[in-house]
Amino acid sequence: MGKKKKVQAITPMGEDFARWYTDVITKTEMVDYAPVKGFMVIRPYGYALWENIQAAFDKRFKETGHQNMYFPLLIPESFLNKEKEHVEGFAPEVAWVTHGGENELAERLCIRPTSETIICSMYAKWLKSYRQLPFLYNQWANVVRWEKTTRPFLRTSEFLWQEGHTVHATFEEAQEETLQMIDIYREICEDYLAMPVVVGQKSEKEKFAGAHATYTIEALMHDGQALQSGTSHNLADHFAKAFGIKFLNKEEKEQYAYSTSWGVSTRLIGGIIMVHGDDYGLVFPPKIAPTQVVIIPIAQHKEGVLDKANELKNKLSDLRVLLDDNEAYSPGWKFNQWEMKGVPVRIEIGPKDIENGQCVIARRDTSEKISVSLDEVENKVKELLDEIQSNMYNKALKHREEHTKAAKDMDEFKKVQSEALGFVKAMWCGCAECEEKIKEETGATLRCVPFKQEDIGSDTCVYCGKKADKLAYFARAY
Amino acid sequence: MGKKKKVQAITPMGEDFARWYTDVITKTEMVDYAPVKGFMVIRPYGYALWENIQAAFDKRFKETGHQNMYFPLLIPESFLNKEKEHVEGFAPEVAWVTHGGENELAERLCIRPTSETIICSMYAKWLKSYRQLPFLYNQWANVVRWEKTTRPFLRTSEFLWQEGHTVHATFEEAQEETLQMIDIYREICEDYLAMPVVVGQKSEKEKFAGAHATYTIEALMHDGQALQSGTSHNLADHFAKAFGIKFLNKEEKEQYAYSTSWGVSTRLIGGIIMVHGDDYGLVFPPKIAPTQVVIIPIAQHKEGVLDKANELKNKLSDLRVLLDDNEAYSPGWKFNQWEMKGVPVRIEIGPKDIENGQCVIARRDTSEKISVSLDEVENKVKELLDEIQSNMYNKALKHREEHTKAAKDMDEFKKVQSEALGFVKAMWCGCAECEEKIKEETGATLRCVPFKQEDIGSDTCVYCGKKADKLAYFARAY
Repeated sequence: MGKKKKVQAITPMGEDFARWYTDVITKTEMVDYAPVKGFMVIRPYGYALWENIQAAFDKRFKETGHQNMYFPLLIPESFLNKEKEHVEGFAPEVAWVTHGGENELAERLCIRPTSETIICSMYAKWLKSYRQLPFLYNQWANVVRWEKTTRPFLRTSEFLWQEGHTVHATFEEAQEETLQMIDIYREICEDYLAMPVVVGQKSEKEKFAGAHATYTIEALMHDGQALQSGTSHNLADHFAKAFGIKFLNKEEKEQYAYSTSWGVSTRLIGGIIMVHGDDYGLVFPPKIAPTQVVIIPIAQHKEGVLDKANELKNKLSDLRVLLDDNEAYSPGWKFNQWEMKGVPVRIEIGPKDIENGQCVIARRDTSEKISVSLDEVENKVKELLDEIQSNMYNKALKHREEHTKAAKDMDEFKKVQSEALGFVKAMWCGCAECEEKIKEETGATLRCVPFKQEDIGSDTCVYCGKKADKLAYFARAY
Repeated sequence: MGKKKKVQAITPMGEDFARWYTDVITKTEMVDYAPVKGFMVIRPYGYALWENIQAAFDKRFKETGHQNMYFPLLIPESFLNKEKEHVEGFAPEVAWVTHGGENELAERLCIRPTSETIICSMYAKWLKSYRQLPFLYNQWANVVRWEKTTRPFLRTSEFLWQEGHTVHATFEEAQEETLQMIDIYREICEDYLAMPVVVGQKSEKEKFAGAHATYTIEALMHDGQALQSGTSHNLADHFAKAFGIKFLNKEEKEQYAYSTSWGVSTRLIGGIIMVHGDDYGLVFPPKIAPTQVVIIPIAQHKEGVLDKANELKNKLSDLRVLLDDNEAYSPGWKFNQWEMKGVPVRIEIGPKDIENGQCVIARRDTSEKISVSLDEVENKVKELLDEIQSNMYNKALKHREEHTKAAKDMDEFKKVQSEALGFVKAMWCGCAECEEKIKEETGATLRCVPFKQEDIGSDTCVYCGKKADKLAYFARAY
């Protein structure tokens, strides 16, 4: 793109990735810091992205038979205490409501950090017979977790998410649901967010507080750090026993039910930014971009230019298209502005183009520019959006593959990590001590034991050297 | 509807309206009581209705140039204190967070009862120049108001709503926005919710805490009580001054901005139920009904019946259609069940119908049944849904008109009220004392001074008898 200048100094990724991230999210007006420490304001450009992400997930949830509902924000302290592991995991990070109006409450209420406890208490009330099962419900909501170190989208004291909560008659059905949902997460991340993920199981140490098993999708960011992007938990009968979710089975015997929960959050926005962004700013996958096409008229004061630009806009009206006819800024300024904002396709149209019956189309992902006849522009743009979507996925996949290395022992582990951060594939004996030691020595945590196991030419634990039959992914993580 | 029996005893409206309401909302599984007093669980059937209501409003907000965003749940106490009238109005009913994790907070945080204060604090940071104006933003969120007496949907300690918050360069533009939004509320209530409303201005006593002027839409429920269903506030420069929302105007002089806010909430669900419901349960307007058409197969075990029912379902697939092929229940039970759930159109199809190439269509609003050829069913159902939508509106309007009476003095006021509750139209001198006295003596509050003024043959205040040039609507209200 030759002589292009950056509009508003964004710190280059290579110089300081954390500052690059902060620059990008604030200068593009995705987000701002709230007056209360650790909280964020999601600005319209960020929220429009979230709405598109939501729509993609919500559609799949509904297609697989889930319905939305809404549970209260506040949970009695006694509820949180019912599941032992759960309270240990969450109590240190909840916000407590102690007063309602002018009165002190008899029992403290916590702002939901997640809703298993309150939802299970109602499920226990509603469930009577196997005929009612499964319960396939979800809610879109805000949650609060009092975090010490925060970064917008990635870790904030309040975030938006969906939490699915299902109940089943058998452990096997709960397991099937848990795996179905982690696969839907993978599908949406890959197909809509153009973000390749490794799918696998969390270790005992990293699993959800109160779960039998946690499955995860892990994405690799541009700086080689991993981002846990969604999790799905088989809760077995743990919460059912804690809250008394029982039903009469086909044999007319009372038994406990099995439940699952699963969630993705506004954290995904941080993932999209750090997977696709570059030194010029955001790069959004067409399927979820708030604006897919921006039309920028050249010499818009000249007769016929704005008319043609509007004509073009109308032609593309089944896309998310924006005509930037703001007179206060030059086309060059607008090019840079919308490039920074990550709009996948830019169309330039000026007097000369109109004379030749064409316009210029520029791609955000590769910076290529082509001239297209005005008759063909509709098809060409749609074709291009598809191409950009798959190109972005392939590029991200290539980056991940280049930053995924195998290691047979700790020397090799440290060596590959010192060359470049990324995923380290290594055999693991399954014990928590080795997992902990690896973290201490390398800063890398066990991201997951992937579903796709492979032979890396070793069958001994990367740490202790004992027999090991599990391949695991390790990485430093957000 | 002849020999039909009610499936689950719903208390008749005429016997006890409050119990009728409670029966209907719980037996149809719209909502349940949460473990924390005053809070509600919105169940899937209730939430699906809310999603359709949301979609109708959100579309109009976006068409009029508004964008969504998201602000933090928690507001520092000091912010609430900045606007004097505002804090007086809201402080008595907010929930206070005093602890985050294990630590006591340096400053208490309140859970937003409404977000003017935190939003204005950010607007003050963002706004620099008149070129940025107007700010046209909205958020969909949960809010908490610690209420003493609650009833699901109508008044709950937590509810879901949208709150629009806009900023303008002049008072006039803020006023224009305020009026535009109350008119959009009227439009959606009338066109989608089939709920006629009176549009007008609140008295000083009833206006929003901190506003210059509040406009309202008031609907009349089946029992003759009014429901404030949406409000739009011109905040003038009150919040701008409290939070320092200033900008450089065209003359390069710094000046304060003007702001508005406006909201509708899950309270609307209560309104829909109490405007349209009957002794058999819910009656939903087709445009927002979670299920518009339910197909009930007769003798579904007989060959070909379920095939035909599925064929029918596919034909109607651009509607929200549900085929109830549950074997555990009889068609008769299903008729009553879906009637109670307010589905606008029911289709019955059995072996005899199939033989005759037809099906039976029943309307929820009038209980009429007709036989329709299977070739025409698609057009007929769509036609019928339109007809039901407008019939429901007209019926509700007729009810309101029959329950709106004029009164020239307090004797007449009390007399019309004793005959039947409803709106009382009366002249009002404009003073708060008369407003207060009327409330004391009749229980009726001043709902609004309607935009549509009319001559009721009096020009003196219904209470004090002094000269009066305002016609006002009074009613007991939820």
